[in-house]
Amino acid sequence: MTEPLVKPELPGGFKDYSSRQVLARQRMMRSIETVYRRFGFVPLQTSIAQRRPVLTGGKSIENRLWDMRVDKSAITTDPDLTVTARFDLTVPLARYVAANIGTIVFPFRRYEFGDVFRGETPQAGRYCEFMQFDADIVGAALGPADAEIIACMYAVMRALGIERFLIKVNDRKVLNGFAERVGFQSGSKSAAALLRVMDKADKIGLDGVLAELSAKEAPEGEEEVFSFDAAKLDMVSRFMALTEGLATNADRLSALKEYFGGEGVGAEGVAELELIAMLVTASGVPEDAWVIDAMVARGLGYYTGPVFETVLLEKPEFGSVYSGGRFDDLVARFTGESLPSVGASVGVDRLFAALESLGAVDDTEPDVDVFIITMDRSLMADYFAMAAELRAAGVSVEINMNYQDSSNRAQMGFGLSRRAPILLFYGTGDAAKGTVGVKNTATKAQESVPRSELVAKVLTVLGRSA
Amino acid sequence: MTEPLVKPELPGGFKDYSSRQVLARQRMMRSIETVYRRFGFVPLQTSIAQRRPVLTGGKSIENRLWDMRVDKSAITTDPDLTVTARFDLTVPLARYVAANIGTIVFPFRRYEFGDVFRGETPQAGRYCEFMQFDADIVGAALGPADAEIIACMYAVMRALGIERFLIKVNDRKVLNGFAERVGFQSGSKSAAALLRVMDKADKIGLDGVLAELSAKEAPEGEEEVFSFDAAKLDMVSRFMALTEGLATNADRLSALKEYFGGEGVGAEGVAELELIAMLVTASGVPEDAWVIDAMVARGLGYYTGPVFETVLLEKPEFGSVYSGGRFDDLVARFTGESLPSVGASVGVDRLFAALESLGAVDDTEPDVDVFIITMDRSLMADYFAMAAELRAAGVSVEINMNYQDSSNRAQMGFGLSRRAPILLFYGTGDAAKGTVGVKNTATKAQESVPRSELVAKVLTVLGRSA
Repeated sequence: MTEPLVKPELPGGFKDYSSRQVLARQRMMRSIETVYRRFGFVPLQTSIAQRRPVLTGGKSIENRLWDMRVDKSAITTDPDLTVTARFDLTVPLARYVAANIGTIVFPFRRYEFGDVFRGETPQAGRYCEFMQFDADIVGAALGPADAEIIACMYAVMRALGIERFLIKVNDRKVLNGFAERVGFQSGSKSAAALLRVMDKADKIGLDGVLAELSAKEAPEGEEEVFSFDAAKLDMVSRFMALTEGLATNADRLSALKEYFGGEGVGAEGVAELELIAMLVTASGVPEDAWVIDAMVARGLGYYTGPVFETVLLEKPEFGSVYSGGRFDDLVARFTGESLPSVGASVGVDRLFAALESLGAVDDTEPDVDVFIITMDRSLMADYFAMAAELRAAGVSVEINMNYQDSSNRAQMGFGLSRRAPILLFYGTGDAAKGTVGVKNTATKAQESVPRSELVAKVLTVLGRSA
Repeated sequence: MTEPLVKPELPGGFKDYSSRQVLARQRMMRSIETVYRRFGFVPLQTSIAQRRPVLTGGKSIENRLWDMRVDKSAITTDPDLTVTARFDLTVPLARYVAANIGTIVFPFRRYEFGDVFRGETPQAGRYCEFMQFDADIVGAALGPADAEIIACMYAVMRALGIERFLIKVNDRKVLNGFAERVGFQSGSKSAAALLRVMDKADKIGLDGVLAELSAKEAPEGEEEVFSFDAAKLDMVSRFMALTEGLATNADRLSALKEYFGGEGVGAEGVAELELIAMLVTASGVPEDAWVIDAMVARGLGYYTGPVFETVLLEKPEFGSVYSGGRFDDLVARFTGESLPSVGASVGVDRLFAALESLGAVDDTEPDVDVFIITMDRSLMADYFAMAAELRAAGVSVEINMNYQDSSNRAQMGFGLSRRAPILLFYGTGDAAKGTVGVKNTATKAQESVPRSELVAKVLTVLGRSA
């Protein structure tokens, strides 16, 4: 080779998945898909590439985005002409719905899985490309649809064999109601600033929240209302402790109900949570799997009502592995009219990493059912014919191709590295007798069976019916 | 809304797939995957984003590529730092193998499906993002591995229910041998120029090829050898007609064997094809499903030996829907050493489009098994409980969420648009009696069954066992 060698590296922040990882991940994805189908969701596949204004809605957003352009094309500064990789699956869904609004019959229940891209600074466990697996109901009013999403989240977690998890449920209106109590208009910059700090409670604790609020500068233009004196800080601590120590969701709802006294947007939020709680319970979701948590906010700007997030009780450090909420105004970015919508998204890579660290990922599946030892190269046509017969019967077969390294011992080692439950031996002696050696790698028993009974024998050893 | 509306458009050259399309495509993908697994392939998933020199190997390549960069990052002109979306799955495989060469046990059989990106000029049926589904054997010498890939291609086409197709098989060495005969060194610019024109025979015919060769200017630096006088043009027509009208692959191989007379790289290519033909036949691939075709070249630069392509006999205008070949030198781009490798790739979108145009895509699958008519909103908790019971039994259920539009007739229409085989009716009368109305939408029969027998009844109507 005269050309200089290319380094076989990926760009920082990107990764490959090995065969064992993909097999385990596929099992996980299929479990999720089975549950989504049971809940009546059908698949949609949106393009990875989107127009930049579609993703941003003209606003600045929290995630740095990956722009895409064809190598020889001019670099454009016109955002309208900029192609950008999607950073989630919710915005492309809203775009799809808006573009097909005349033909879609609502409510539209779709699931989608696929890679999304964010310009993360490369570091361990944070990748620029990662997979999400979403289910959303577009065009369904608040209440039943939100409850179904929570019931679906519960069913997914159980289908994945996860026992110890907690789905936290809140309503943005509860938080907005609290901000109103403090004296900030719902939806104002001051309210947003307050809620952003409170959302950090998980990480910095109550004291951290109070310290940060005391030191925080007022958002521009709202200097008059934004201040945290002792009385307001006291309101924050009282609100954050409001549902603490209460054993049931009914108790937590009562406490919130009493706090707002039936007034303002906060009371609306509590009424929404009451309806949802009734239907989640009717769906058979047990009380210990979900909790009304008045502190959950969810970062993304587009949520308008109920919000959900799921933590693994044994791996809280992974954060939320499955989250979502109601986004009634997202389609309005394109149509000018609200369309009530709610959904949730599995962070596939994060959940997988958490399960791996729990030792809960099964990667024992064999690569093949049968590995054929090619004892004699002159019999290659026979090996191919055997493989064809077995494959026609649904058996997966690998023929040794590494015939340069022809020792039977080396080939057996290779077959075992594939975790094949069966090794086949067939040499010139077998060819003369019309038999094949079938070795069960679990019991180490080896039998010589007539060539004509090979398929039946293999199916028996595999425990399958013909 | 005060912000200007965003147009819900995709960038030119990109598309979404509707639920029905995804369901049909998923069925197709799973058929392919089942066959790949039977042939002992295991999945791999490489990153969409690659470093630019990984994809190009420093050479200019035929496809315009999509570069990717994080929005606020500086624009780099250093190709080493440029991130580029993969244009196929073979180069990322070679990169993965080179990066993990110490831990992979060869031969390494992997399949991968995923989106690839090319800077196509937007036009009907040519998209910038499309899916491929590859299977490759890396680290296996020529012969058995190539035959297995062809047997696998045949099995995939049959598993997809396609009857009328033809897998065309050739060897690059046959074409290089012909170029030598004409007087061009194997692998020279002149040989490449000749083969590129001959590869167009499908589109422009023999006369077109001859006309183009006569008019063609010599590649730079090879003016002395590159000329097409009458004698050379005659050689081209004779070679192109060499296997024409020959009924069997054995006859075609004989004609090629005789042509090269056992000499040069052409004879090597014929010997390779003979070995492959023997094993393809042993695999049970019938003679009418594949053909030795001395004119097949395949565009991509990295093929070194046998090459394959598959046409649908009823839709030849779609071109090759499944193609591949041997690429012994691709890993050498990274390691400096050749690693014998062979594989093939389904053009998922192209094949799907061809099958759609043949009317061979089944999109009759119901979205849900059961649609629950919410006759009375006060019974919503009961609907949720029924859905939970049915889903626990593996039945997919949609609860009507569109309760604003509460007429039973409208809800029935909606359930039928979901192709639900069963509609459930449950109102206050049923609640009092403890019964549920189960309507079979195929027979239009409706029965009132005790609430406690609902799951059993639904499973019976669906033809499933409890």
